[in-house]
Amino acid sequence: MEQILGPAVPSPRAVLRPIGIHDVVITGGPFARWQRINYEASIPLGLEQMERSGALPNLRRAGGEGEGPFQGYRFQDSDLYKQLEAIAWEHVRAPQARYAEFADQAAAVLERAQRPDGYLNSHYQVVKPDKIYTELEYSHEMYCAGHLFQAAVAAARAGIGDGLLQVARRFADHLVEVFLTGGNDAIDGHAEIETALVELYRLTGERSYLELAGKLIDNRGKGLIADTGMGGLYAQDHLPVREAGTPVGHAVRQLYLESGIVDVYLETGDESLLECSVRRWEDLVETKTYITGGHGSRHDGEAFGERYELPPDRAYSESCAAIASVHWNWRLLLATGQGRYADLIERTLHNAFAASTSADGLRFFYVNPLQRRDDLVEDAYLGRRREWFACACCPPNIMRLVASLGGYVATTTETGLQLHQYVPGAVSAAGARLRIETAYPWDGQIRVTVEEAPQGEWELALRVPAWSESTYAAFSWTGDDRAIRAAEDGYFRIRRHWREGETVELRLDLTPRLTYPHRKIDAVRGCAAVERGPLVYCFEQAGQPEGVEVDDLALSPGAPLRVRAVDDLEGVGRTVLIETDAAAVDQPRGGLPYTSKPLATSTRVTATAIPYFQWDNRGGGAMRVWIPLA
Amino acid sequence: MEQILGPAVPSPRAVLRPIGIHDVVITGGPFARWQRINYEASIPLGLEQMERSGALPNLRRAGGEGEGPFQGYRFQDSDLYKQLEAIAWEHVRAPQARYAEFADQAAAVLERAQRPDGYLNSHYQVVKPDKIYTELEYSHEMYCAGHLFQAAVAAARAGIGDGLLQVARRFADHLVEVFLTGGNDAIDGHAEIETALVELYRLTGERSYLELAGKLIDNRGKGLIADTGMGGLYAQDHLPVREAGTPVGHAVRQLYLESGIVDVYLETGDESLLECSVRRWEDLVETKTYITGGHGSRHDGEAFGERYELPPDRAYSESCAAIASVHWNWRLLLATGQGRYADLIERTLHNAFAASTSADGLRFFYVNPLQRRDDLVEDAYLGRRREWFACACCPPNIMRLVASLGGYVATTTETGLQLHQYVPGAVSAAGARLRIETAYPWDGQIRVTVEEAPQGEWELALRVPAWSESTYAAFSWTGDDRAIRAAEDGYFRIRRHWREGETVELRLDLTPRLTYPHRKIDAVRGCAAVERGPLVYCFEQAGQPEGVEVDDLALSPGAPLRVRAVDDLEGVGRTVLIETDAAAVDQPRGGLPYTSKPLATSTRVTATAIPYFQWDNRGGGAMRVWIPLA
Repeated sequence: MEQILGPAVPSPRAVLRPIGIHDVVITGGPFARWQRINYEASIPLGLEQMERSGALPNLRRAGGEGEGPFQGYRFQDSDLYKQLEAIAWEHVRAPQARYAEFADQAAAVLERAQRPDGYLNSHYQVVKPDKIYTELEYSHEMYCAGHLFQAAVAAARAGIGDGLLQVARRFADHLVEVFLTGGNDAIDGHAEIETALVELYRLTGERSYLELAGKLIDNRGKGLIADTGMGGLYAQDHLPVREAGTPVGHAVRQLYLESGIVDVYLETGDESLLECSVRRWEDLVETKTYITGGHGSRHDGEAFGERYELPPDRAYSESCAAIASVHWNWRLLLATGQGRYADLIERTLHNAFAASTSADGLRFFYVNPLQRRDDLVEDAYLGRRREWFACACCPPNIMRLVASLGGYVATTTETGLQLHQYVPGAVSAAGARLRIETAYPWDGQIRVTVEEAPQGEWELALRVPAWSESTYAAFSWTGDDRAIRAAEDGYFRIRRHWREGETVELRLDLTPRLTYPHRKIDAVRGCAAVERGPLVYCFEQAGQPEGVEVDDLALSPGAPLRVRAVDDLEGVGRTVLIETDAAAVDQPRGGLPYTSKPLATSTRVTATAIPYFQWDNRGGGAMRVWIPLA
Repeated sequence: MEQILGPAVPSPRAVLRPIGIHDVVITGGPFARWQRINYEASIPLGLEQMERSGALPNLRRAGGEGEGPFQGYRFQDSDLYKQLEAIAWEHVRAPQARYAEFADQAAAVLERAQRPDGYLNSHYQVVKPDKIYTELEYSHEMYCAGHLFQAAVAAARAGIGDGLLQVARRFADHLVEVFLTGGNDAIDGHAEIETALVELYRLTGERSYLELAGKLIDNRGKGLIADTGMGGLYAQDHLPVREAGTPVGHAVRQLYLESGIVDVYLETGDESLLECSVRRWEDLVETKTYITGGHGSRHDGEAFGERYELPPDRAYSESCAAIASVHWNWRLLLATGQGRYADLIERTLHNAFAASTSADGLRFFYVNPLQRRDDLVEDAYLGRRREWFACACCPPNIMRLVASLGGYVATTTETGLQLHQYVPGAVSAAGARLRIETAYPWDGQIRVTVEEAPQGEWELALRVPAWSESTYAAFSWTGDDRAIRAAEDGYFRIRRHWREGETVELRLDLTPRLTYPHRKIDAVRGCAAVERGPLVYCFEQAGQPEGVEVDDLALSPGAPLRVRAVDDLEGVGRTVLIETDAAAVDQPRGGLPYTSKPLATSTRVTATAIPYFQWDNRGGGAMRVWIPLA
């Protein structure tokens, strides 16, 4: 929810308030590492791609500069907008002249490209100006506008990209004229603009933006979108949002839509919006969520799939879906204050999301499967991370989230501060200043020193993760050790008059554990996964002893899971490996693989697991999150 | 292999010779039932669709008659060709004036549509005449030509459709001119013409047809096909056929290609062709074949998928792939005489193929999954059989195979006859006449009476199916009971001087059995399927006691499987149900479906299975072939 990460604009229904990215300093751990490679490797690559992929040339072309054909997809502009948003948040985090310069130049290109009436979309302006707003079912015109608005809000908060906000407002005003006051009831096939309009409203106070967001949400599910051949489910146009049940169709669309729904609730207080979104969240979490936090079970239509349809090998789990899920969960957290949303953010960030980028920040997954077979033949292009994609929605999306990670660490209330994600560093907000020392998630000890607190009673809330075996956590309070209990909503709270320098210590039990799937998940029946703290592990071919095939492994529920910390694993960096005694099973092959008398032999081996997010940095062999039980 | 089903034209490398459809009379059992509904319901529906779907109107349009836009897909013509082939084989089986009439009329339409140079394709003639042969990667021009040739061969053998063979030959001659002698090295993205050209050669003796087939096969895998975005694997253009390993890409394309490869071998004796095809067959059977005989694990690209990627819910198992598999296996059977190919034909016909059509013959599956969840939300259109499809490749394909089923029952050699599929009725070929009495597959007793045999030593060969628990089968020879052993190749052979009226009786053990998947098939780990004889069973919601959910069932390996014959199950017809004591398992839901302490309770229930091919005739609830073990 990078849009709410600037100076807090209290939404009337927000139970918790976001703090600014500049209010959080992350000094170590995976978040800091990701931000470093984002800054050093990913963003420079992304900026280069803005030229190479056609995003900037297309827009120059729309502005009357240059020649050549339009390049890429209808939504190519959105790559630039996400990239601009990424550098804006990055500029807030660690100001860079080159970022400010790029943003200024891009803003100038956009100013020249924008039509006098405010419309802006290089594909439609260059390729089919006569089709503007006539094929919204797949045009992505509002989708691109939404990303423009998000970029403009971020840039405004970062103080870069002069003119960008004006471009965004002119386009937003044009959309209001056509789709709010102009009587055009059409909606975009790809939700995204709804959440962006609300954020533009939050920044500018222009209420028609909020009203347009509300109208677009209300108009969804009325069959106003022409069927693109994927059916009404694909774009969530099968039922009005207040009636729609389980999440369906294209996962990223559904998840962006939910962000917009909760955003409109936060501003208008329309309870029916929060209620329907929470209902779908519960269904999604219970029946359509991977253990990595990923969403989307089908390549076909990039869709959710049926309840409990969660294949590990054909998981789609698009990187953009993980990002959209973090956005939605963050809004639900602000709206309700419930830890279950921060729990899912943690699971998603550390697993489905983190896996999307290589350890060097130069390659990305679009699709994040939980299994790769050894003899990959089909879809070889999906098997390994790639530098870029023809449809490059994911890489710049990843970059904007990484740059804004600080904003997901903490929130405030009138009389307190809530820590949702544990990172070493400092948080300063609402009159308080905290120092956090931890090697989380490698280590479970988190020490929070209150360096400054407001006068009077003030509350510090610490999230106790749901993966923690009990709701108790070891706790020391300036030397006074005792077990504490988190409240029902997942937080442990200390409310008191604080003295400078007081320390709270949370100790989370990181003993590795075997996790079993619900029996209704057919695709991983008879298997277990290894987890440690918030990290899901996987067994990668690269880490196994000579002669041990990942596809032959079988786990013993009783076998100890041994932890082995490694400071700098080649290609990977800091990690904690988990070793266990397992079986390597051999079953004869030949003829149909169905028999009434299955025969198998097995030998004892040592198998090694690595955090899922670190996979595919040591070659392209087999990988499995779920391992059959012996 | 309906093309070789006319008067036998001995291919030099055929170990076995096909017999004509008119040489087999099927009087009962599933084959007779399917042929009856094909004749009574499916074919009339198909003929109606030839007008409604645009197939005939498009061709009239190409011939200068009528107006209106082209309807349907680029390959719409092929629907008509398959339909014509179906009525031709049906005419051989049971002559019908209305079929002869339709064929004559259709032939006249085709004559008028065909260009003077022999080219014929309504899409390209009507919509884009300037693009003829320029976009073969997806044009289906040769694919349609192939189906035209197959229809023409069938019609010629049936003695209907005057002029059809001339149309086919003119087009074939045109193709020879362009692609064989004309130096154009292009190939079609969708294999199919190769096998059809060989059959046209067999009928006409025109060797250039065989040579063109050979050239098209040799040119595959040289990267001559432009990439349609699906990659070279999609159309098997990744490697030359002699080098290509595991079957890949679009399943139907690979399987039709294999038929052509074996056909060219049968005529030319090029051993490298047979060798590569057998190598891929072994890989396919071992790693990419469903228990139903179906092929194709992915909706995405209608493709095979990786080795052991065999999800039951997302099985594609296209009806056309089952048909193509029967064609290929039949050719391999003729080429080698090995029973394993007839075994797979049996499995495919009785399961994957038979399931494609409703009990009333009026609805069809395009996709044949092995599991349907109860709360189907996505892809509702795939969940039930439908009357027709926008892409209607399957229904007329099903009809042509059903009409020609008699041709797959038996073959001959110089001195004997081989029974491959067991049906009640009569077979007359090569001087022998057999009467077959059986209620197979409902009952395992097969009585063959030799009513006439050639003079001298003569051999009767009976296939002993691979699913039979041992290679022994109870056998009585005019009263002389003894156990017999099938040869290595899967046949029991009796070679002697036969006397009129002698009887051979084969008794196959139809005790129901639990079948387990190879451990490498991740998607159905921890499950078993019920089989009886050649039939795969499934558990359908409709057949369960009140309150028992198919998705909750768990099977006990030790529980007896009780057989219950039903003469006429409502909506289904004759069947044999299997009942067993099972568990209904309840596992609590709520929150993420992953836990370190899975808790479940179970109750004892009676569960009932029905042959898979009869599913979806009693409503749209859940269905599973694979059931978890308790």
